[in-house]
Amino acid sequence: MSYARQMLGSYPSDFKLDADAEVLAAVIGAATDCAQACVTDTDADLSEPHLAEMVACIRLCLDCVDICTVTAAVLSRPASWDLLVVKPVVEACAAICRSCGDECERHAPMHAHCRVCADACRRCEHACGEFLTLMK
Amino acid sequence: MSYARQMLGSYPSDFKLDADAEVLAAVIGAATDCAQACVTDTDADLSEPHLAEMVACIRLCLDCVDICTVTAAVLSRPASWDLLVVKPVVEACAAICRSCGDECERHAPMHAHCRVCADACRRCEHACGEFLTLMK
Amino acid sequence: MSYARQMLGSYPSDFKLDADAEVLAAVIGAATDCAQACVTDTDADLSEPHLAEMVACIRLCLDCVDICTVTAAVLSRPASWDLLVVKPVVEACAAICRSCGDECERHAPMHAHCRVCADACRRCEHACGEFLTLMK
Amino acid sequence: MSYARQMLGSYPSDFKLDADAEVLAAVIGAATDCAQACVTDTDADLSEPHLAEMVACIRLCLDCVDICTVTAAVLSRPASWDLLVVKPVVEACAAICRSCGDECERHAPMHAHCRVCADACRRCEHACGEFLTLMK
Repeated sequence: MSYARQMLGSYPSDFKLDADAEVLAAVIGAATDCAQACVTDTDADLSEPHLAEMVACIRLCLDCVDICTVTAAVLSRPASWDLLVVKPVVEACAAICRSCGDECERHAPMHAHCRVCADACRRCEHACGEFLTLMK
Repeated sequence: MSYARQMLGSYPSDFKLDADAEVLAAVIGAATDCAQACVTDTDADLSEPHLAEMVACIRLCLDCVDICTVTAAVLSRPASWDLLVVKPVVEACAAICRSCGDECERHAPMHAHCRVCADACRRCEHACGEFLTLMK
Repeated sequence: MSYARQMLGSYPSDFKLDADAEVLAAVIGAATDCAQACVTDTDADLSEPHLAEMVACIRLCLDCVDICTVTAAVLSRPASWDLLVVKPVVEACAAICRSCGDECERHAPMHAHCRVCADACRRCEHACGEFLTLMK
Repeated sequence: MSYARQMLGSYPSDFKLDADAEVLAAVIGAATDCAQACVTDTDADLSEPHLAEMVACIRLCLDCVDICTVTAAVLSRPASWDLLVVKPVVEACAAICRSCGDECERHAPMHAHCRVCADACRRCEHACGEFLTLMK
C-alpha cells in the first residue's frame, strides 16, 4: 500500500474525506510518478544528439513537472478542499499530461525514456479524469 | 525593473510573446511575492498563542504557496503556451488568493503578518484577474 | 519497477550514470514518498484537537516537504551532476528527515498519521545515508 | 520594502529572529528572483537556434531553479531553524548560483536573457555568502 494511501487512511477518526481514498491516492501517486518521470525525461532529452527535435518534448515536460507537483500537493491536503481551487488544478493536470503524453509518444519508438514518460503521463491523465468524474 | 520584466524583454528578437510583457511580469511578480508571504505567514501563524483560530489561515496559506509558485513558473515560460493549461492554473490562483486574502484580512486587525499577507494575496488576485481578462 | 528506476535505465546508451541506478532510484523514491507523507501529515496534524502539541511536528514537516522535493528533483537529473551541489542537498535531506522522523515518532503512539510519516522519514534518511556513503 | 522584509518584521513581538532581518530578506529576495530568472532563461535558451551550445546553461538553470526555490522557502520560515538543515541548503544555493552564473556569463555577450540571468545568479550567490558569514 502506498504511503499516500496509508496517510489518507490515518486521519483522526471523526474526519471524513470528501473523495474516495483509493481514487485520491491513485491521482496523488500518478501525479508524483509523472512529475519524476518528466524531470528525468527532460534530462535525458538534453542528452540526445538531435536536440532540435526534442524541444517541444522538453517544454511540455517542464510544465508537466510543475503542474503534477502542485496537483499531488493540493490533493495531499484533503482536510479542507475548495473545489473552486482543486478542480481547475486537476483539469490543468489532465490537459498538460495529455499534451505531454502525446509528444512523448511521438518519440517513444526512438527513445526509451520518452516511452516510459509517455506511460507515466497517460496514467496521470487517466487518474485525473477519474477524479474529475467523481467530483462532478 | 524586475528581473521578470527584464527577462521577458530579452527573448530572441524574432520571438513574439502571446501576452503583454507588463501584465505578464506583474502576475509573475505578484504570485512570487504572494507565495513568499504565505510561507512566512504560515510560520508566523504557528507562533501565535491562539492556534485554533489560525488553522483555516494556515491551510489556505499552504495551498496558496503551492498554487502561486506553479503560476509564476508556468507564466515564466511563455515561449509555447497552451491556454488549456495556463488558464485553469491562473483561475485556480485567483480563487485561492481570494479565499486566502479573505481569511488573512479577518486576522489583520490582530496580526500584522496576516495584514501584510492579505495585501500580497489581494495584489496577486488582482493581477491574475487582469491577465485572465486579456486572455479572453 | 518504479518509474524512477525505469527512467534511469532508459538514457541514451552511451550515457554513464555517476551513481548506481538502484541506489539512486531508491533515494528518489524515498524522498518523493516522504515529501507526500509530510504534506498529508501537516494536514492531518492541523485536524487534531491538541494543536499546540503538534506545532513542532508541523514545522518540521513543512521543511521536510520542500527539502525532499528538491532532493528528488536534483537526483532525477543525473546527466551532469556537480557534487558541490548534490552532496549538501542530500545532507540537508538526511538531517531534516532525521529530525522530522524523531518528532513524528514521538506522536506515533497517539496518531497513526505520524506513525506512517515517521516510517517514510526513516526510509528517506536511510536512503540518503546509503547514497552519501557511495558518493564519498 | 519587499513583502519578505515586511513579513519578517511582523512576527509576534516576543519572537526573536535568529538572523538579521535585512540579510535574511536579501537572501529570500535574491533567491526568489534568481529562481524566476532561471525558469525564463531555460525557456529562452530553448528558443535559440544553436541549441547544442545552450545545453550546459539549461541544465544548470534547472538545478538553480529548484535549489533557489527551496532556499527561499526554508529561509522564509525562520521561527525554528535547524542550522544542520539551513546551512547545507544555503551552501548548495551558493554553489549552484556560482556555476550557473559562470555559464550564463559565457553566453551574456550573445544573449541578453543570459546576461540578465547571470546578474540574478551573482546577486543570489553574494547574498548567500553574506548569510553564511553571519551564521558562522
